[in-house]
Amino acid sequence: MNDIDVTVREVGLRDGLQIHPTFMPTESKIAWIEAEAAAGVREIEVTSYVPPKLIPQFVDAEEVTRRALAIPGLTVTALIPNSKGAERGLALGVHKLNFVMSVSKTHNLKNVRREREESVADFARIVELVRAQPEGRRPRIAGGLSTALGCSFEGRIPVADVVKYALLLAEAGADEIMVADTVGYADPAQVRAVFKAVMAEIGSLPIGAHFHDTRGTGLANVGAALDCGVRAFDASLAGLGGCPFAPGATGNIVMDDLCFMLDSMGLRTGVDLEKLLEVRRIVREALPDIEMQGALARAGLPRNYLRAEERRAA
Amino acid sequence: MNDIDVTVREVGLRDGLQIHPTFMPTESKIAWIEAEAAAGVREIEVTSYVPPKLIPQFVDAEEVTRRALAIPGLTVTALIPNSKGAERGLALGVHKLNFVMSVSKTHNLKNVRREREESVADFARIVELVRAQPEGRRPRIAGGLSTALGCSFEGRIPVADVVKYALLLAEAGADEIMVADTVGYADPAQVRAVFKAVMAEIGSLPIGAHFHDTRGTGLANVGAALDCGVRAFDASLAGLGGCPFAPGATGNIVMDDLCFMLDSMGLRTGVDLEKLLEVRRIVREALPDIEMQGALARAGLPRNYLRAEERRAA
Repeated sequence: MNDIDVTVREVGLRDGLQIHPTFMPTESKIAWIEAEAAAGVREIEVTSYVPPKLIPQFVDAEEVTRRALAIPGLTVTALIPNSKGAERGLALGVHKLNFVMSVSKTHNLKNVRREREESVADFARIVELVRAQPEGRRPRIAGGLSTALGCSFEGRIPVADVVKYALLLAEAGADEIMVADTVGYADPAQVRAVFKAVMAEIGSLPIGAHFHDTRGTGLANVGAALDCGVRAFDASLAGLGGCPFAPGATGNIVMDDLCFMLDSMGLRTGVDLEKLLEVRRIVREALPDIEMQGALARAGLPRNYLRAEERRAA
Repeated sequence: MNDIDVTVREVGLRDGLQIHPTFMPTESKIAWIEAEAAAGVREIEVTSYVPPKLIPQFVDAEEVTRRALAIPGLTVTALIPNSKGAERGLALGVHKLNFVMSVSKTHNLKNVRREREESVADFARIVELVRAQPEGRRPRIAGGLSTALGCSFEGRIPVADVVKYALLLAEAGADEIMVADTVGYADPAQVRAVFKAVMAEIGSLPIGAHFHDTRGTGLANVGAALDCGVRAFDASLAGLGGCPFAPGATGNIVMDDLCFMLDSMGLRTGVDLEKLLEVRRIVREALPDIEMQGALARAGLPRNYLRAEERRAA
């Protein structure tokens, strides 16, 4: 779309809720999705098609997906760990499947009990499934690389490994590549090195970034990725999130702060910052015990703040 | 010094304590300064030479300065609002005087009750005082520009105004220029614009940056300033800080997180991260009610973390 410069993608309903022990009522999830779409967020990862036995939070994946698909203009995505998940997504007509594997061998084994090459083969089979769909029912398929900027089991991950698996997913037919700092290890220099190397190899294939703010560097990493030309970022409202298999990893970058920073930089996201901040109330009321982050929510907008759109018009 | 790439400057004892209602015992201040110097921080703004009637927290400015000056290898600095403050610093033999004025007309009037031109004239008189000192007793004098990236009374500040006052302070004889985002309004694009413009005019004069993390963009702004070539940053341990005349402005960037980010980027600061984190205990014990920030303190260092020095040696 030409009226925005950067796509922000809400992943809190998946990455934020997956490690939270309390079930968020389905109606609250829908209210959150509807309110955030109304605030201008155009892409939301609404759930994960994992077995509900594994993560009971996603027992309502079907209903959440169906109702999100009813929201006009919203791109509805969901995480898939394997081809079973892909089949569920295809049956529902979700707009995009977010496949994820780990660049770290150890993390991939712990997270999906597979060698990385097996995950790549899984992905290739999923792409076949997707391509077998009739046109108009064919979702986009993203190839996600978690632990690409560090792993809580292995530490730093060689850039060459990230490039290798990005290329394998691209060759297998990914419509886009997602590079994720699952455990919040990244710094801006590393982000630049990894994204430049990956982008040089995957050519014009779209690329997105998924950062966690575990060690405070989240928005600095966004700045570095922007410099590389990345124009799609995952984030979660109030910084909800973490990874069940990465001890100590807490918090995606804060959607509200991300949108403020981008907008302040003159980059249009399509998001109304005041409306976005109001969505926090839905989360707070549904999950009174969840930890919520967010500097903008505490401090408010700067005095005489002009939105990127307004400055562009002026 | 050639063994570090970036100078980090602790300002928590001044910027962090000035709005805190509880007096921090002098012994705790000294313990904090000594521990942070031992952790490798080479420059500390230990106090402010304002009238103690105005800010009782600094009633012990003389003793704190004297005892900090006894620490080998530490550059001891202090904030001065006017020439009276400068005289106190000169008498004590402090290593550097940090003069500060606001680029925002309104903020300068509220903060030091002067027009900006009067502040520049004050600064010129202070430089004369400094130059009249015998060599060896002559401190460095920094010209600081607060509200350079936004003002809670005026909103955005024209880049031309920042350049104008930076040049006036440089011409008056500043040994370095400090550009401050006093109220945490800045974004990386704005930082780039302001620092590039100022640096183009002041030539080889050293420049430092002072960022607040009020809206979450603090370390992203550091990233942008690094790109411009800035190699000196203010920060406060645990993100203590704010501005008494800027409502809602809380928190300098977190020293611990700043040092982690720089070190992770391969930029040597001379700071031992584990030792630095231990200094937080001194602050916590002396001021149990103060709000402390810090992502690294919560999450710990990444697995198998190699310090910038170690990576350079490897």
